[in-house]
Amino acid sequence: MNITEIIGICAGILTTISFLPQVILIFKTKHTKDLSLGMFVMFTAGITLWLVYGISIGSFSIIAANGVTFFLSLYILIMKIIHG
Amino acid sequence: MNITEIIGICAGILTTISFLPQVILIFKTKHTKDLSLGMFVMFTAGITLWLVYGISIGSFSIIAANGVTFFLSLYILIMKIIHG
Repeated sequence: MNITEIIGICAGILTTISFLPQVILIFKTKHTKDLSLGMFVMFTAGITLWLVYGISIGSFSIIAANGVTFFLSLYILIMKIIHG
Repeated sequence: MNITEIIGICAGILTTISFLPQVILIFKTKHTKDLSLGMFVMFTAGITLWLVYGISIGSFSIIAANGVTFFLSLYILIMKIIHG
């Protein structure tokens, strides 16, 4: 594996797991006031389309990365809808 | 262009511009308390690596999408550091 692909994998891991600290913060505080509803509606919709795209072209990497992000993003969206 | 590529492009546009409503909300309210610092540190670092990856493989799509997201994410990160 060359350095470029290692950078790509690190990029994918970072952008995927970055949502985890936000999920943990919301789980602890139940506070979502400063989060934008529009952001998480659009982001979750976009990730859903990435999943469809990944399944469509049969890319395990795209399915795995976006599968994880989908659940984290959906949790944040649901909490935002519940807590406002 | 087939339906799969159209889905991929819509996915890219949605996940890229989704950060814009969060930027606008912060610009208006200056409130970032409920945002996770860890999320935006990791996300901005990840997007930076995506940019490096895009430049490295010469992919205009990756550079364009992550270039936009980089500035939006960096703005949110700086505001989070300033406003706490």
